[in-house]
Amino acid sequence: MEQRPEMSVSCPVALRRYANIVLAHGGGGTLMHELLQETFLSAFHNPVLDQRHDSALLDIAGVKLAFTTDSYVVHPLVFPGGDIGSLAVHGTINDLAMLGARPRYLSAGFILEEGLPVDTLNAVVVSMQHAAERCGVQIATGDTKVVERGKGDGVFINTTGIGQIEHSLEIGPRQVKAGDAILINGDIGRHGIAIIAVRQGLEFETTIESDSAPVAGLVRSLIEAGIEIHCLRDLTRGGLASAANEIAEAARLEIRIDETAVPVREDVRGACEMLGFDPLYVANEGRFIAFTPARDVSRALDILHSDPLGAGASQIGEVATNETPLVTLKSRIGAARILDMLSGEQLPRIC
Amino acid sequence: MEQRPEMSVSCPVALRRYANIVLAHGGGGTLMHELLQETFLSAFHNPVLDQRHDSALLDIAGVKLAFTTDSYVVHPLVFPGGDIGSLAVHGTINDLAMLGARPRYLSAGFILEEGLPVDTLNAVVVSMQHAAERCGVQIATGDTKVVERGKGDGVFINTTGIGQIEHSLEIGPRQVKAGDAILINGDIGRHGIAIIAVRQGLEFETTIESDSAPVAGLVRSLIEAGIEIHCLRDLTRGGLASAANEIAEAARLEIRIDETAVPVREDVRGACEMLGFDPLYVANEGRFIAFTPARDVSRALDILHSDPLGAGASQIGEVATNETPLVTLKSRIGAARILDMLSGEQLPRIC
Repeated sequence: MEQRPEMSVSCPVALRRYANIVLAHGGGGTLMHELLQETFLSAFHNPVLDQRHDSALLDIAGVKLAFTTDSYVVHPLVFPGGDIGSLAVHGTINDLAMLGARPRYLSAGFILEEGLPVDTLNAVVVSMQHAAERCGVQIATGDTKVVERGKGDGVFINTTGIGQIEHSLEIGPRQVKAGDAILINGDIGRHGIAIIAVRQGLEFETTIESDSAPVAGLVRSLIEAGIEIHCLRDLTRGGLASAANEIAEAARLEIRIDETAVPVREDVRGACEMLGFDPLYVANEGRFIAFTPARDVSRALDILHSDPLGAGASQIGEVATNETPLVTLKSRIGAARILDMLSGEQLPRIC
Repeated sequence: MEQRPEMSVSCPVALRRYANIVLAHGGGGTLMHELLQETFLSAFHNPVLDQRHDSALLDIAGVKLAFTTDSYVVHPLVFPGGDIGSLAVHGTINDLAMLGARPRYLSAGFILEEGLPVDTLNAVVVSMQHAAERCGVQIATGDTKVVERGKGDGVFINTTGIGQIEHSLEIGPRQVKAGDAILINGDIGRHGIAIIAVRQGLEFETTIESDSAPVAGLVRSLIEAGIEIHCLRDLTRGGLASAANEIAEAARLEIRIDETAVPVREDVRGACEMLGFDPLYVANEGRFIAFTPARDVSRALDILHSDPLGAGASQIGEVATNETPLVTLKSRIGAARILDMLSGEQLPRIC
């Protein structure tokens, strides 16, 4: 991972140093956030977009909806534990879930490269449908474009989701409070390592499978049990470290993470060491953090543990006041250090 | 992806002729419809998708919504009369309009190619925002992915739209009735010719500009005036001929088009003759047909003519009963012939 210590989110000249788009502009780290800020948010500026949550919260005729979009360009199309089709459903469902919404409808937009085997497309589409059925959503509308050979890469999929919000909680980074506990629903790093392993032909003693999974049901279980959820964030591009930094900045608080409490499987840790990755920055596709008052922790963990997708849940940290928003990591040897947002690009086309 | 030959069991002969995707699978004609039927609809089959309208009609907690998605891969990014940014707003707005919906929110998903000039992206984004403001919609949520050089083509944009339906009309191909008049809001063929001209470096006496424009306001004027609209369809890929065929097939009726009544500008007609195109098949991005009872025609045309986007409106045909659904064209010399759906590919990457 290339270090660019001179760049910071607040530096307006940063993007101008890049006359052209680089892979890191899609990597989930500081460059992507600069592009978001300086190109997209500055042009599209409006109250809904400015919420800057995983999903936008809409109110249409008194009905509260979550609305979110993601394009999927993962390479390769099939990887241990998933494929682009199921990923395109899970990823968007999970963004809806981060507002506690019940996922209802997805759109599906395909950009196909000339020469793509029709059998490959059929398999992707069937996988999407299986994932959608599992999540209780309908693929309501779609679109197909074809580009010339060499102008695309097999298949890119956009899914955009609508979820219905049936609870009265306000869930978002600005609801995070000092003293909140931070829970995670399981071990981190498997999605990124699964992708890089198959891409580079690496073999480990065990096959590391992606954690790609839909977490909307799990989140609804928490809400229905009356857990006071302040914020939710899924840990995709940029991993746990980048998600925590986004929330710390929006909440203007300090997030303290206890490294020894963050679940990482031994095989994933080994793979990360071999590859020079820090699991805290590796992408997940079925993992999220939840911010709740300390009094709800034990009950929330019980609920999470009762679901296979939350079997490895634990508390990984807490929130504190600090004049400077930041994320600190208490390491295995007890020392605390600042945990920055991902800088540069770690794994292109992870999702 | 691994081969799953059992998936092709139900696949009729037409698609199996193509083991691989060809450009015409995105062209709006027969091959695209086969792919839609045999790959997408057969896998995703559900009551909402099976409406097969430009937008899906959703009911969430009693609120009626239109929901539609389109990916934009137009080449080049800028063309006379528009660019990929404004097109990505107009195109999706227009699909919402085809249910008579008030466009409310758009998502914007970008797939950027490494090396894209940031200035180009900024110009596209600003153009999107201007178009969105003009249409009264907010870009509520977004996503950015970056792919390696040679795996994309500058910028692809997906926009997915949510519109609110505030009328009680049922608008769709199955509402079309024998005796209905068919109205069009203006001259056809300019978008396709504008694209092909700039792509091939052709020069005509006048610059032919795309008709790219948002027609949602125009449609709402018709509805608010009490025009009984049975069906609406915008005339994008595959042009008027393919749109008419889709509706004839869904309505199980004959659509009769009077060629002399279809407005085509002389410069567009000349360009089409030079290029070997039939304007009836050329894509538009600000043109639609409306099916209404004959008694509403004069009033509807008055309303259309009062708006610049409908200044060239006219009645171009009517609907008749026929055991075989089809589209017939009464030509300039008075003879009638069958007007088929676009076969093969005319202009790749027109939108």
